[in-house]
Amino acid sequence: MLKIALLGAGRIGKIHAANAVAHPDLTLSHVVDPVEAAAEALARETGAAVATLEAVLADESVAAVIVASTTDTHLDYCLAAHAAGKAIFCEKPLDMDLARASAAAGPLAGARLLLGFNRRFDPNFQALKARLDAGAVGGIETLQITSNDPAPPPVAYVKVSGGLFKDMAIHDFDMARWLLDEEACEVFAWGSALVDPAIGAAGDIDTARTLLRTASGKLCVIANSRRSGFGYDQRIEAYASAGMVRADNVLESSVQLWTETGAQADRFQNFFLERYAAAYRAEMAHFADILAGRAQSSIGYADGLAALSLAEAAGESLRSGKPVKL
Amino acid sequence: MLKIALLGAGRIGKIHAANAVAHPDLTLSHVVDPVEAAAEALARETGAAVATLEAVLADESVAAVIVASTTDTHLDYCLAAHAAGKAIFCEKPLDMDLARASAAAGPLAGARLLLGFNRRFDPNFQALKARLDAGAVGGIETLQITSNDPAPPPVAYVKVSGGLFKDMAIHDFDMARWLLDEEACEVFAWGSALVDPAIGAAGDIDTARTLLRTASGKLCVIANSRRSGFGYDQRIEAYASAGMVRADNVLESSVQLWTETGAQADRFQNFFLERYAAAYRAEMAHFADILAGRAQSSIGYADGLAALSLAEAAGESLRSGKPVKL
Amino acid sequence: MLKIALLGAGRIGKIHAANAVAHPDLTLSHVVDPVEAAAEALARETGAAVATLEAVLADESVAAVIVASTTDTHLDYCLAAHAAGKAIFCEKPLDMDLARASAAAGPLAGARLLLGFNRRFDPNFQALKARLDAGAVGGIETLQITSNDPAPPPVAYVKVSGGLFKDMAIHDFDMARWLLDEEACEVFAWGSALVDPAIGAAGDIDTARTLLRTASGKLCVIANSRRSGFGYDQRIEAYASAGMVRADNVLESSVQLWTETGAQADRFQNFFLERYAAAYRAEMAHFADILAGRAQSSIGYADGLAALSLAEAAGESLRSGKPVKL
Amino acid sequence: MLKIALLGAGRIGKIHAANAVAHPDLTLSHVVDPVEAAAEALARETGAAVATLEAVLADESVAAVIVASTTDTHLDYCLAAHAAGKAIFCEKPLDMDLARASAAAGPLAGARLLLGFNRRFDPNFQALKARLDAGAVGGIETLQITSNDPAPPPVAYVKVSGGLFKDMAIHDFDMARWLLDEEACEVFAWGSALVDPAIGAAGDIDTARTLLRTASGKLCVIANSRRSGFGYDQRIEAYASAGMVRADNVLESSVQLWTETGAQADRFQNFFLERYAAAYRAEMAHFADILAGRAQSSIGYADGLAALSLAEAAGESLRSGKPVKL
Repeated sequence: MLKIALLGAGRIGKIHAANAVAHPDLTLSHVVDPVEAAAEALARETGAAVATLEAVLADESVAAVIVASTTDTHLDYCLAAHAAGKAIFCEKPLDMDLARASAAAGPLAGARLLLGFNRRFDPNFQALKARLDAGAVGGIETLQITSNDPAPPPVAYVKVSGGLFKDMAIHDFDMARWLLDEEACEVFAWGSALVDPAIGAAGDIDTARTLLRTASGKLCVIANSRRSGFGYDQRIEAYASAGMVRADNVLESSVQLWTETGAQADRFQNFFLERYAAAYRAEMAHFADILAGRAQSSIGYADGLAALSLAEAAGESLRSGKPVKL
Repeated sequence: MLKIALLGAGRIGKIHAANAVAHPDLTLSHVVDPVEAAAEALARETGAAVATLEAVLADESVAAVIVASTTDTHLDYCLAAHAAGKAIFCEKPLDMDLARASAAAGPLAGARLLLGFNRRFDPNFQALKARLDAGAVGGIETLQITSNDPAPPPVAYVKVSGGLFKDMAIHDFDMARWLLDEEACEVFAWGSALVDPAIGAAGDIDTARTLLRTASGKLCVIANSRRSGFGYDQRIEAYASAGMVRADNVLESSVQLWTETGAQADRFQNFFLERYAAAYRAEMAHFADILAGRAQSSIGYADGLAALSLAEAAGESLRSGKPVKL
Repeated sequence: MLKIALLGAGRIGKIHAANAVAHPDLTLSHVVDPVEAAAEALARETGAAVATLEAVLADESVAAVIVASTTDTHLDYCLAAHAAGKAIFCEKPLDMDLARASAAAGPLAGARLLLGFNRRFDPNFQALKARLDAGAVGGIETLQITSNDPAPPPVAYVKVSGGLFKDMAIHDFDMARWLLDEEACEVFAWGSALVDPAIGAAGDIDTARTLLRTASGKLCVIANSRRSGFGYDQRIEAYASAGMVRADNVLESSVQLWTETGAQADRFQNFFLERYAAAYRAEMAHFADILAGRAQSSIGYADGLAALSLAEAAGESLRSGKPVKL
Repeated sequence: MLKIALLGAGRIGKIHAANAVAHPDLTLSHVVDPVEAAAEALARETGAAVATLEAVLADESVAAVIVASTTDTHLDYCLAAHAAGKAIFCEKPLDMDLARASAAAGPLAGARLLLGFNRRFDPNFQALKARLDAGAVGGIETLQITSNDPAPPPVAYVKVSGGLFKDMAIHDFDMARWLLDEEACEVFAWGSALVDPAIGAAGDIDTARTLLRTASGKLCVIANSRRSGFGYDQRIEAYASAGMVRADNVLESSVQLWTETGAQADRFQNFFLERYAAAYRAEMAHFADILAGRAQSSIGYADGLAALSLAEAAGESLRSGKPVKL
């Protein structure tokens, strides 16, 4: 059993805590959070101890940390944990600032680090990638990534979120990189505040269409909205030379209602905790494999930088109204 | 251009008239109907002449008749038309009485006759049969035929309809024969009046489940209801040794509505005129091929007798509460 | 934490053991199995102790037993556990013999017993029932239960299985009772050995169609095959006065392949361990609720007897060729 | 019966000829084509006479012309037909050159002219628009138009086609205008030659992603490829404030094959003659209504200019690499 400490007892921290507890190879040993009550509650629930970051890093029996604290602490905690010889499971994004994140790349070069782009572990997207990798439809040419949230977050959250591209589309930029088999060389983005004028007033957008282009001419569309009106909308279509593979939304059940107005399927699984529950479990299992030396990290620091750099380029394109070369 | 006369200017007669008019090889020459106004209206619309049955049969330029009159006239008109040397397109069922229909089999032995089991011409069921015939899923073993009307007919109609088995399930008995590749040797049926107590009071049922069994042990379920509550429900599932082929309902459009309650498809095409429009056209085209000597009738008198005999057996089983051997 | 002991360390026992271990309120304390190696392996994996039945029953700290041993031991173990004051989670079926099971009903009258009809806990079937109970489509009239295994078991298994009705369709009889809201009063069944002649030679069938009828005329069809050719096929359609609710098969992923031959969905989840994983977890959670006094058992001894009695009646109908009244 | 003359006896001309012949109010009187054999064959088939353009225009009994000749003749024929007092059904596009087409707008100002954007008459897209217009999902915000051909045309055709935007995407520009309820004010396009290098060598693209933006911030993505690998791919998704409406591809039949590899639906209707057969019929019916004074043309000259202007802007954006304001 490997001891692992959690930094950050918020919503996403709780998920990782539960998955660490349930994993046969891992023990959640410590919970660290500046909000004492949060740390204590989660510690009680999981059988872990409340601790400070310093104590965790000094404890040689702790093999790894999960960085699930606020984004502005990610880099510092990664650097400290790596210096203390711990393996790191770090939530996305690396940081809000590409320059800062780039500067940390050197010191973190040799880190055993898994970055939490959870969608790579979703069974549906994995099945899609497996079909592509197996050549079931030939070579990929274009990609359509649709990623709409069910409802917009409070404006207070939007203001500190880093904006739609870094907060929300960052996942989609990673998906694009994962599936296109070629880096994007140019980005173009348009965005609007159609859902909530207050989001526009806060200087952000809630609706965007982003185009990526690779050197060989592959094209990718990323469609984002902060509000779908019909649940969590997470779909990918990969067009290739001999057909198309798509991963569709996941329904709450297989039940259909047939009435005078037509056949109605069940609702889509409504948000990320539900839709990506299996992905979060698989992600933790992969981290356990990394700790045990059974696997190399499939999502390293460079992946975090690359996604962040696409997000910054999209933001720049939005501001300038022109495509941005990478 | 071959001249063809219509006997019966009712709902189904009008469909056949329109399809005959639209067919490049056929001319609708005469319309015969005891209700003069009906005959005249349809004649006007189609450019045909109003005529009596006698005149039609005496007219040597008329190559064929469409028997779309009331069921009790089918046999007599077929016999007369055959005696006059006409080819015959006769609506189902042959007759309400198996004994009477059997008695006419001799005289009609050599007739060029197409019986109107239109579902054999439905593109969806034809695609299903094509897959089976091509061996796409191996040899057929069991069959599920679902055939529900959108809403029950008036009780007045039910009383003269010949009952659910002869009026409605007769199509399904023919489908079973067409797809099973082996004749049923035994029938068992249960029925209830669940939709409308008046149907029960009239001595009929509105809901039935009928089992067919062949000598080699193939099994078929026919599910019928006079009212689905969700439109016209016409589906078939054919289970075979290496999989299953199904033909599903047909939707009014490919439109879906995605809202908070789920994804809603469009309504099913609501009734037989809409769902089987293509089938009726193809049926008339097949009749034109028969007339032109390009094809043999694919549905002959013997098929009509066989379906009627299954319907009678189902009725007998319903009354006796026991399976009936054929 | 409530201590619970497992009787039977086979395939289904292992599932229940894992779910008990994962449940926050339960501790798996003991594993009992005549095959010592099996008991030891599972005990090691789960942190439980190997024990004898006698020791378990004598241990006052053990609150409950899971009866997952061979079917012929179910009744004896239930009686012994109840006499020792333990709550019981017993796998289906109660017994192969209705008379024997009926005889035990008296002594077990007051037992806290949950019978393992896991499908009642499947999220899809629960969603179906919830729609029906909410009146979304009016009152239920007819029911279609389709339950096909992916591939036939070895004939050696078939010979000791109690036959298709008691081994396989027993679940469907329970589903019919759960959904029809009225007990069946008559059963009719036809069966064939179409999949494997050896199954026929062993005196069993591998393909069946069973009809149930209630006093008010509700009809139910149960379609069973030991081999679908396309995976585990578990579907229900409930027809009601204003529409229909169906629960469809569950796919391995939401991925579709679009190629020249059409759009291909992913495979159905292939067998019960996968399809009903969530149901087994929910079942254990319900048992924990019973133990904690938070819930009454939703599936009691009488439900086991009723399903067994339908299975016997179906077998009798198959042999006699006639409907059997209950 | 209104007499109507056909200019152009090619593939699309034949469709319009057949629909005119089948329409109860129309008579196809003349066929005009420089290729004499083509004109004669179609005239023979439809019962029309071969004629010259001059003769047709001079014939006062001819009420209307169908302009289905090569694109470079569209404007001249429209001008001549309007000067002769004929109503006009003109195939898209108006012309390859926006300036030329704009110049003809004045003389054609009062023309009774229907432009052949057939997709507006597709029952699926009409159902989609009807849902939007009825407010079923609130106000439209973004639009995704997917329009992929099954296989690329010969390069010889590509060279004279006017390019992907004017030849193929012109329909999609019209769809966007029809559905967005607001004109686009800016266009951005990226394109590649991924399907066939010869298309690239000919100076054209075979794959494109085009973004449209309206003044209020509505966004539209148009996805085009000259080759899907899975048939004719014609889909629209309209995202609105309370949900989404989509029109999906249309299948050849409702048949599904369930085998070990999953459930396979039938192929998509493969190309425009099949997919838009009903649309072409409805388009001709609308033209008949215009001729009879029962309707105003729903697609006028200005619509043709607007779509062409979007196509030109997309081409300009492709060349310049920058968004283009309209």
